[in-house]
Amino acid sequence: MSEFDLINRYFKYLPCQRTDVLLGIGDDCALLQPPAGKQLAMTADTLVAGVHFPVNTPAVDIGYKSLAVNLSDLAAMGAEPAWAMLALTLPVADENWLQQFMSGFSELACEHGVQLIGGDTTSGPLSITVQLTGFVTPDQVLRRDAAKPGDKIYVSGTLGDAALGLKKCLGHIASKNSLLHCVSRLNRPDPRVALGRELLAVCRCSIDISDGLMADLGHIVNASCCAANIYLNKLPLSDELQKFYGNDIDWSVVATGGDDYELCFTLPPQHEPLLKIIAEKTHTRLTCIGEIISGKGVHCFDEAGREVGFANAGYNHFSDSIK
Amino acid sequence: MSEFDLINRYFKYLPCQRTDVLLGIGDDCALLQPPAGKQLAMTADTLVAGVHFPVNTPAVDIGYKSLAVNLSDLAAMGAEPAWAMLALTLPVADENWLQQFMSGFSELACEHGVQLIGGDTTSGPLSITVQLTGFVTPDQVLRRDAAKPGDKIYVSGTLGDAALGLKKCLGHIASKNSLLHCVSRLNRPDPRVALGRELLAVCRCSIDISDGLMADLGHIVNASCCAANIYLNKLPLSDELQKFYGNDIDWSVVATGGDDYELCFTLPPQHEPLLKIIAEKTHTRLTCIGEIISGKGVHCFDEAGREVGFANAGYNHFSDSIK
Repeated sequence: MSEFDLINRYFKYLPCQRTDVLLGIGDDCALLQPPAGKQLAMTADTLVAGVHFPVNTPAVDIGYKSLAVNLSDLAAMGAEPAWAMLALTLPVADENWLQQFMSGFSELACEHGVQLIGGDTTSGPLSITVQLTGFVTPDQVLRRDAAKPGDKIYVSGTLGDAALGLKKCLGHIASKNSLLHCVSRLNRPDPRVALGRELLAVCRCSIDISDGLMADLGHIVNASCCAANIYLNKLPLSDELQKFYGNDIDWSVVATGGDDYELCFTLPPQHEPLLKIIAEKTHTRLTCIGEIISGKGVHCFDEAGREVGFANAGYNHFSDSIK
Repeated sequence: MSEFDLINRYFKYLPCQRTDVLLGIGDDCALLQPPAGKQLAMTADTLVAGVHFPVNTPAVDIGYKSLAVNLSDLAAMGAEPAWAMLALTLPVADENWLQQFMSGFSELACEHGVQLIGGDTTSGPLSITVQLTGFVTPDQVLRRDAAKPGDKIYVSGTLGDAALGLKKCLGHIASKNSLLHCVSRLNRPDPRVALGRELLAVCRCSIDISDGLMADLGHIVNASCCAANIYLNKLPLSDELQKFYGNDIDWSVVATGGDDYELCFTLPPQHEPLLKIIAEKTHTRLTCIGEIISGKGVHCFDEAGREVGFANAGYNHFSDSIK
């Protein structure tokens, strides 16, 4: 199968078609009509087999996740998703794999009104780069550098599930428990796009939790020149994770595990009543886990009020390969 | 070195800064101000080590070429380059390699007024995906599907140099001749951005020659529902290639060799006088190699008027891996 057959069969005629795509897949470039009065938000993320997902991950989940992690970046800025480009490097042109991959990608693209407008297919070790463009209204955006002392720190959903799911997938857990919820959270994260857009009504500071809470909240306090106090007993846990650990929760999984793709945001306290309405409207659990203070760093406290340190402050691809 | 150190040291503070970049590298997304009254042209291309460039290619050339191939796609549409995203997958975070890579990338970015606005760095087998956005004026664009019978077929520059350079780099040529020009054409292609924009004054149909003339002209005739006659003795050759082959030119190298990144375009004959002015203005050799006719396919003729066939009609990543 040639690259051109591939493009025609699996990429060109996906169900989601947008009127602002003037020329989609099939020429040297796609042509797009940007909406009047809007600014563009752009992100790009790469997933490498064996690094960002276990090599035995189903193709349908790889397709889903490769778009989800980019949607999560748009969610963190409060942007409206629009156009995706897909650069797919494959060892072989396996039609069955491709069909599965594109069904996962396409399902999520349709859900968020995203059209695939172009990209590249190449042969090589399995790796997927998705570039995604969305729209924002000028000055209506969530950033990392907008936290202020006195803000409450919130997270959406629950934390640590994906990290526990990864342990399960890698065979590091000898439990009979299949941990279906946690594995699903790892493979099919639910990007908080609707929440991000609603948050624009109440706050200006957000990040998505991809590298773990401690690391990503660290980016907020570094960029905002302030500090954070958070409390272990406030961190939201899924029933499955709680049941798995019982009374001996591994807090490093919850506080530093990556791939949750929840939002962490900071909120002026006077907007807390409005936030309850947003939580109901978006059907999202929102939990206050601490507060922004002046100073430096992220400080995490246990129930007894003692500060807790973590050896691994977040996933870092290159931490073991300094040269 | 962490991913964040890498970003700060090599990606964040490049010399080319644009005023339409409202927020560059460092948050979940970049924020961009699209120009009023323009449409966007977007492209993305991946280079995989050992597939798209020999593994011993200098890092500075890999950086240069990874942007050049994308600029060439914008050139083929007549677009004005603006914003680049870089997804870089590296086996190790080798500072010297990165510094060289970014110096090649940055040199070409500056030349074309392109700002690097974001991307991703990951660990894995060496692979580079660049996504590039440019601007076009509505209805002022070069496309593959706009050739018409009677049009003259032109190419810029010379053909086959990069393919001959690749043979040299791979050690397939036992010549003492270093073929410096051809190797340079392979590693540092000169994207015809200025030419593409000037061509908007005289034509509407163009493609860049990345997979070889026969294959890429094939895309034009397929998309335009017409045919092409081209003539071997009209194909423009560099002095170095001509000298290397003498009287026994390997026409498959010239007509089907990839990586030239010249433009192939079709021109209503009445505009040929204007084209001479464009050639002078852009300091570009422009050569008529044939004409568009009604029918199907690309037909190539030798000096005796016999039609010539080529076994390899263009580089195809997946042609040997059908499953």
